[in-house]
Amino acid sequence: MVIVMRPFATKKEVGAVLARIEELGYRAHLSQGVERTIIGVIGDERPLDPAAWEMLEGVENVVRILKPYKLTSREFHPENTVITLNGVAIGGDSIVVMAGPCSVESRAQIHEIAHMVKAAGATILRGGAFKPRTSPYSFQGMGEPGLQLLREAADATGLLMVTEVVSPMEVPLVAQYADILQLGTRNMQNYSLLHAVGEAHKPVLLKRGMSSTIEELLMAAEYILSHGNYRVMVCERGIRTFETYTRNTLDINAVPALKQLTHLPVIVDPSHATGKRELVDAASRAAIAAGADGLIIEVHNHPERALSDGAQSLTGEQFAAMVKRLARVAEAVDRRLAVGEPVVA
Amino acid sequence: MVIVMRPFATKKEVGAVLARIEELGYRAHLSQGVERTIIGVIGDERPLDPAAWEMLEGVENVVRILKPYKLTSREFHPENTVITLNGVAIGGDSIVVMAGPCSVESRAQIHEIAHMVKAAGATILRGGAFKPRTSPYSFQGMGEPGLQLLREAADATGLLMVTEVVSPMEVPLVAQYADILQLGTRNMQNYSLLHAVGEAHKPVLLKRGMSSTIEELLMAAEYILSHGNYRVMVCERGIRTFETYTRNTLDINAVPALKQLTHLPVIVDPSHATGKRELVDAASRAAIAAGADGLIIEVHNHPERALSDGAQSLTGEQFAAMVKRLARVAEAVDRRLAVGEPVVA
Amino acid sequence: MVIVMRPFATKKEVGAVLARIEELGYRAHLSQGVERTIIGVIGDERPLDPAAWEMLEGVENVVRILKPYKLTSREFHPENTVITLNGVAIGGDSIVVMAGPCSVESRAQIHEIAHMVKAAGATILRGGAFKPRTSPYSFQGMGEPGLQLLREAADATGLLMVTEVVSPMEVPLVAQYADILQLGTRNMQNYSLLHAVGEAHKPVLLKRGMSSTIEELLMAAEYILSHGNYRVMVCERGIRTFETYTRNTLDINAVPALKQLTHLPVIVDPSHATGKRELVDAASRAAIAAGADGLIIEVHNHPERALSDGAQSLTGEQFAAMVKRLARVAEAVDRRLAVGEPVVA
Amino acid sequence: MVIVMRPFATKKEVGAVLARIEELGYRAHLSQGVERTIIGVIGDERPLDPAAWEMLEGVENVVRILKPYKLTSREFHPENTVITLNGVAIGGDSIVVMAGPCSVESRAQIHEIAHMVKAAGATILRGGAFKPRTSPYSFQGMGEPGLQLLREAADATGLLMVTEVVSPMEVPLVAQYADILQLGTRNMQNYSLLHAVGEAHKPVLLKRGMSSTIEELLMAAEYILSHGNYRVMVCERGIRTFETYTRNTLDINAVPALKQLTHLPVIVDPSHATGKRELVDAASRAAIAAGADGLIIEVHNHPERALSDGAQSLTGEQFAAMVKRLARVAEAVDRRLAVGEPVVA
Repeated sequence: MVIVMRPFATKKEVGAVLARIEELGYRAHLSQGVERTIIGVIGDERPLDPAAWEMLEGVENVVRILKPYKLTSREFHPENTVITLNGVAIGGDSIVVMAGPCSVESRAQIHEIAHMVKAAGATILRGGAFKPRTSPYSFQGMGEPGLQLLREAADATGLLMVTEVVSPMEVPLVAQYADILQLGTRNMQNYSLLHAVGEAHKPVLLKRGMSSTIEELLMAAEYILSHGNYRVMVCERGIRTFETYTRNTLDINAVPALKQLTHLPVIVDPSHATGKRELVDAASRAAIAAGADGLIIEVHNHPERALSDGAQSLTGEQFAAMVKRLARVAEAVDRRLAVGEPVVA
Repeated sequence: MVIVMRPFATKKEVGAVLARIEELGYRAHLSQGVERTIIGVIGDERPLDPAAWEMLEGVENVVRILKPYKLTSREFHPENTVITLNGVAIGGDSIVVMAGPCSVESRAQIHEIAHMVKAAGATILRGGAFKPRTSPYSFQGMGEPGLQLLREAADATGLLMVTEVVSPMEVPLVAQYADILQLGTRNMQNYSLLHAVGEAHKPVLLKRGMSSTIEELLMAAEYILSHGNYRVMVCERGIRTFETYTRNTLDINAVPALKQLTHLPVIVDPSHATGKRELVDAASRAAIAAGADGLIIEVHNHPERALSDGAQSLTGEQFAAMVKRLARVAEAVDRRLAVGEPVVA
Repeated sequence: MVIVMRPFATKKEVGAVLARIEELGYRAHLSQGVERTIIGVIGDERPLDPAAWEMLEGVENVVRILKPYKLTSREFHPENTVITLNGVAIGGDSIVVMAGPCSVESRAQIHEIAHMVKAAGATILRGGAFKPRTSPYSFQGMGEPGLQLLREAADATGLLMVTEVVSPMEVPLVAQYADILQLGTRNMQNYSLLHAVGEAHKPVLLKRGMSSTIEELLMAAEYILSHGNYRVMVCERGIRTFETYTRNTLDINAVPALKQLTHLPVIVDPSHATGKRELVDAASRAAIAAGADGLIIEVHNHPERALSDGAQSLTGEQFAAMVKRLARVAEAVDRRLAVGEPVVA
Repeated sequence: MVIVMRPFATKKEVGAVLARIEELGYRAHLSQGVERTIIGVIGDERPLDPAAWEMLEGVENVVRILKPYKLTSREFHPENTVITLNGVAIGGDSIVVMAGPCSVESRAQIHEIAHMVKAAGATILRGGAFKPRTSPYSFQGMGEPGLQLLREAADATGLLMVTEVVSPMEVPLVAQYADILQLGTRNMQNYSLLHAVGEAHKPVLLKRGMSSTIEELLMAAEYILSHGNYRVMVCERGIRTFETYTRNTLDINAVPALKQLTHLPVIVDPSHATGKRELVDAASRAAIAAGADGLIIEVHNHPERALSDGAQSLTGEQFAAMVKRLARVAEAVDRRLAVGEPVVA
């Protein structure tokens, strides 16, 4: 941490800062510039709150030097984390595709879609049973019966299954059915929930908050890791900007940035990141070209009748055609799609 | 809802849209323009999802006409909602000031601050016992013992007390101690929590998500009202923008906009909205001039030693001087500060 | 400037950075931390480009210590700059009100409005003759005849006159008619134009770019000052955020922030900052309460027939009523409106 | 255009709106809903200003139906515009690479870089002679001598040359040297400049404003086309968001969105869109995968000594390696890089 003193800070003010540094067990390093005195604080700065230091008399501002996360950082853990589930490796050389509807709506729907996406090459089934919806008047998901249908459809097709958990109380219930627990964008900083999934024995797919920085995403992951669960994937799903033509702005820069900063697998959600079915294909290709370890995509058998997020869902046919194109892009960056085994049901 | 068809939409496509409208029990109203056909959907559009309609063949885009919230809207309930607690009216003519530390740290601290803010004119004590913190390594709050200390300090000074609840499981516990339940910015769209406080018998202070629109804030309030709790205050606490000099950008426009759109009291948090102690005074004056019904302000007896948010906390002296200036601005807009009774302890 | 080296930077890499610092005539100051080595660069860092240093091997990142502007800063010039024109002082104790239509449309229109705003208390007439418009098909302003009409109307009422200049070629022409040259939000970083007005002998009203930081606004002002024109006012006119209910978000924090960082007068444009007539009043009161030195407001005799920006224009009656309310807020912060002398024509 | 009336709009208010519509030569189409009356305006709405209609009594809001641009739209001109220069086709099947330094600094520098990028496969040389810089104290470019050096280096290598023009006065000068005129992000809404390049006889590379919407970019292009110059490329170069780790956020969604909305070639600038050399490669691959027609990339022979933008410049070696990877991605989306002929000099 570096403390910058105001131009005419007095000796007494500088002395008080030095005293406080030593009081807390750190060493100080004074540097007298032309217009400013700056003081380096030597020691592990992570527990220090820069804001508290800015309150001291004569201090102009305070700059952190270290990243505030540790377990999550590639510096701390240089090799890629690979999460292996039932023979599917996430974060390794091959790229996983998760696909399915926004919400489970019925047995027929989820079974039909599961077969569709399996046949097209997905290895993980997605679908929501607990839906965080902006309006209290919208469909809120089927709840536990939805979880059962998802599990059934996953088992019938040999797919893994990921579904969202929205409250710490329901973590045990969802963990009973799901292979991967999803934390949604609105819950990225729901610390009770981060704590709860940190103690669960299931991998976690953590979505970036729609207005969170890359650093905040990694801090949220740090919560989960610091509670003992190291099997975390981080997911770029579009951020909120002034642009209104698309639902969100896919922050494609975040993909290589995250690969540099962390060892955790990086997933991209092009469906939410665009909000428009006709942009999903291009956004998915871009994600793979930029280095994503996986995609999570909304597919519906009847998008025009979906109870939620129809506009960004692909039909089975569109999805199958897209996966073929994605496989070619994966090869062009020396990777391959982790295509699922043929359906035996 | 208005459905805009693509330039060369066929009769069959238009027919399919009309059929779907009638199938769902609405009436359609066709309007043939020069370059586009548009179709009005007549009936209560709130349960309809525009995105689902955009999936139909030949549809270019879909425009909502009605606001998606109802109970919260001034159209539905033209008079101001006034929440009265122990003789303090929130949302009426006079303006309430809530003040206290970011976190309760000790009995001595919270008692000293409670006396300070009471003497200066506050009527409600604020303080956090459960703290949502970006870093898992930061101080997370004292928990239930903190709630006890807050209650004690409030009772000793005759102040009301507001404190944050971060998980649906803790709503009953917090409601046992607090007069007002606060929902923080990171939990504005935590629907389990909105549901839980919607069923609690305590007023709620709902903070705007740091990247939420005014409409989303009102939709979050709608969740609480739709579960039966009508005593909700909405709070502008700064939004996230590209500006980095301040911690957030106080959206002052939101104050008069909210007063027009909703009947609920509007509170402003100038401490978080600026993040800099030296801007809190001006931001508070602006909030009152713009029509806010109350302020919530961080005050600390030793800001430089605060365990959180020191940089934006005022000292008791600064706070007392500011309240005097605020009283003058309140008068200039024909209101007055709801100054507390003198301390008798 | 502080240079932070990567965790395992080699001695050779550190040596190369030190050598480069000395080569450029600065002194280096080495500080060995637990996880990082940091190097202070001693001397005036303003000519240095941090990005260039980040290219050196072993460098993790580079932090500036000094503000990049100088002439504009309050540190350099502690007293307020007061711009006096025809007896009207801008930046002193009293607050100026500039008012008028978005565009000059006809002699009758501008004369009627000039009399209206003068009678209500404005001291400066605003109006556009050269209009930067998003669409090439919209009305682009009357050009020089518009300037003549503005001058006439100003002279007839004893008002000063401010109008926008959009191209360096037209600076001499506009300066011939106007008392104050306005630089619009889209031109805040039009450096040819900043250069041209920097050499003009007229005060400048510089609007903040709609997505510019406070620092960038002050850097744009620095361009003008560095070319010899010290009579600059900076204007907050709303920034672009994700909020869509209002046209822009008035960054009210910027008002006290600018007053601290610079000695230049600070003006607020509540008409563009809200984009909605019914919010202008509250936003104007907030601006004055927050410490603004002046306001610039759109007023039209027939807003519903205005050729541009009708939705945010006040009628003369609305404006007059608002000025009375503003005068009370000004008093509450120990200032007063610089009300013009009665019209003698 | 659709006009939505307030819930209790009177017959007289509705009548006034209808009268105004007919007065302006449009036809009105009334639709009586349950809670609102809505009025369709039939005719070419482009010249109408929605804001003016919102001023009428009883009007709640006004919704545009048509896109505000025409010449630029794919609806108006379904086939791709292909700009052919010296045998290089931009906007066709093959993808062009423009490369070079941020600023021309000397003859030796620009010649060395031109040979580097030519050898690696670029077909167009980029370089700035007039530099818009945030600080008046930074290097502002070499001016005309820089243009001469760029022309020389382009001719020596058989490359085309693109360079920025910053003021309408300099359009003829720059057009004398350059093959393509670049309009920078800060000038996207500099209408005098748009007008001037609209009358020039050179193709234009128009960069998106850093906080401009896709629609505003297309409106800026419309200015140029409406002045007679149809050879325009639009360029996504990153937008401003709350993220601070990268200099800008590459809006990758904008690439397929622009390809759908307009017939003009779409170029991506991954250097500015990331601001970090180590992210340029991934961002470039993503741009091609998403459908970009070209890239513009900063390359420097000594990035660590560059007078501007060093941190985002690649070395010649890095650039050459990247181009090989890009060629593979181009193939995977059924396109190819428009690789330049071998150097003969």
